[in-house]
Amino acid sequence: MTTQQLITQIKKKQSFLCIGLDVDLNKIPQHLLEEEDPIFAFNKAIIDATHQLCVAYKPNTAFYEAYGIKGWQALEKTINYLNDKHPEIYTIADAKRGDIGNTSTMYAKAFFEDLGFDSVTVAPYMGKDSVEPFLAFEDKHTILLALTSNQGAFDFQTQTVDGVELYKQVLKTSKTWKNSENLMYVVGATKAEFLADIRQIIPDSFLLVPGVGAQGGNLQDVCKYGMTDAVGLLINSSRGIIYASQNDDFAQAAAAKAKELQLQMSEILNA
Amino acid sequence: MTTQQLITQIKKKQSFLCIGLDVDLNKIPQHLLEEEDPIFAFNKAIIDATHQLCVAYKPNTAFYEAYGIKGWQALEKTINYLNDKHPEIYTIADAKRGDIGNTSTMYAKAFFEDLGFDSVTVAPYMGKDSVEPFLAFEDKHTILLALTSNQGAFDFQTQTVDGVELYKQVLKTSKTWKNSENLMYVVGATKAEFLADIRQIIPDSFLLVPGVGAQGGNLQDVCKYGMTDAVGLLINSSRGIIYASQNDDFAQAAAAKAKELQLQMSEILNA
Repeated sequence: MTTQQLITQIKKKQSFLCIGLDVDLNKIPQHLLEEEDPIFAFNKAIIDATHQLCVAYKPNTAFYEAYGIKGWQALEKTINYLNDKHPEIYTIADAKRGDIGNTSTMYAKAFFEDLGFDSVTVAPYMGKDSVEPFLAFEDKHTILLALTSNQGAFDFQTQTVDGVELYKQVLKTSKTWKNSENLMYVVGATKAEFLADIRQIIPDSFLLVPGVGAQGGNLQDVCKYGMTDAVGLLINSSRGIIYASQNDDFAQAAAAKAKELQLQMSEILNA
Repeated sequence: MTTQQLITQIKKKQSFLCIGLDVDLNKIPQHLLEEEDPIFAFNKAIIDATHQLCVAYKPNTAFYEAYGIKGWQALEKTINYLNDKHPEIYTIADAKRGDIGNTSTMYAKAFFEDLGFDSVTVAPYMGKDSVEPFLAFEDKHTILLALTSNQGAFDFQTQTVDGVELYKQVLKTSKTWKNSENLMYVVGATKAEFLADIRQIIPDSFLLVPGVGAQGGNLQDVCKYGMTDAVGLLINSSRGIIYASQNDDFAQAAAAKAKELQLQMSEILNA
């Protein structure tokens, strides 16, 4: 999917919501465990109930890998279901990969070609030749970790590198990489006060913003400092939506939570 | 496996060689493509021919994920084969993972529990709470990226953070994390001249050293600056060994290359 197609969807749906599909078998309604593929059954129900309220889904690969082959099958079924039934939806493999050149190409093939995701999250620590192999794929986005939503972000990301914080160096340096127009960035909602500075460096890039809801980030603050003329934001909520209820009504409860956020987003878009 | 058990194996086999199982279907002998599981067939032949010459195997997960479910099955068969037939071998999932707390726990479960690896490589960018979940597993090692073997290492890793290079900050800071005795570090052989400095900060930790051979790193230099009284090194070679021949004799050719390195290692250990 191109950036322009994503923007069109955002305007049409009046939503820049991304729903994180981080399925933990200990947290889903217990009757689903009797299904042949409980993870996919859960995802399908969530997708069916929420796909008109969001523009993107983001499975975090850790939650699938933890269940081995069965988990990987559930991930494959989920992305195939999205691509078949809802090709207008933007898909993010939250994989946080990154390795030396030829190995990054293998990861890019895994997520862009084999699984058919629109984008993948990538860690910047190994630098240019670990990220450019992802950027080489046309109409695919590479979402680089910049300033993450967790406490550990203060260990290295906000440390000053030659007078500039490391995450700002990542933003600046990555702009010089080949096909950098295919970059988006992860910036945690818990660090909304950093967004004004970030927009100085990358005024137009899309940001994937986790941390609204369960982690305490605030939607209004993120939009105030991070929104661009072309929106430029994908706000992710995972647990706050998918675990809104652990009972039979889990899908409706998820839809209600998603609707709440979508309405707030619609208001912001029309303000 | 404990560090002490690994050291015992190194002394017994007179080898601190790790063989990287980075299987690319375009590079393996073409007759193997007729096998039901070509990747596992290749790995099994390499393992059978080389297991007495090395102490560790390191599958890079990218090369398995690129082939989807079949790739993941091949990875599972490979680690099961190693754990069943050669439990004395140390196993490394070269996955370069890292995410916020609860997600890192899922990754740790995937590699330590579901697959049964002894260790996993992890990227440090997200800081303490992304790494400590891995460190919590007893008798398992977390191998943190410090200074990698690629050119991109100079983009951020060697930049000065508050007067100290980022990779040194990673070494220093990570030593303060809970269960840090379970840490090892990745330091590329292409940067052997940095090893003396690194040993000032982490005098005893094991280092996983990629980049000898195909990437141009030199074994003697790495040992001169990086070896400790308890060896403290795992030298990885992937392509240089497993693709020594693309003909029917690939396993024997791999064993010959591994033997060459093992003999050099034995000399160094007895010098």
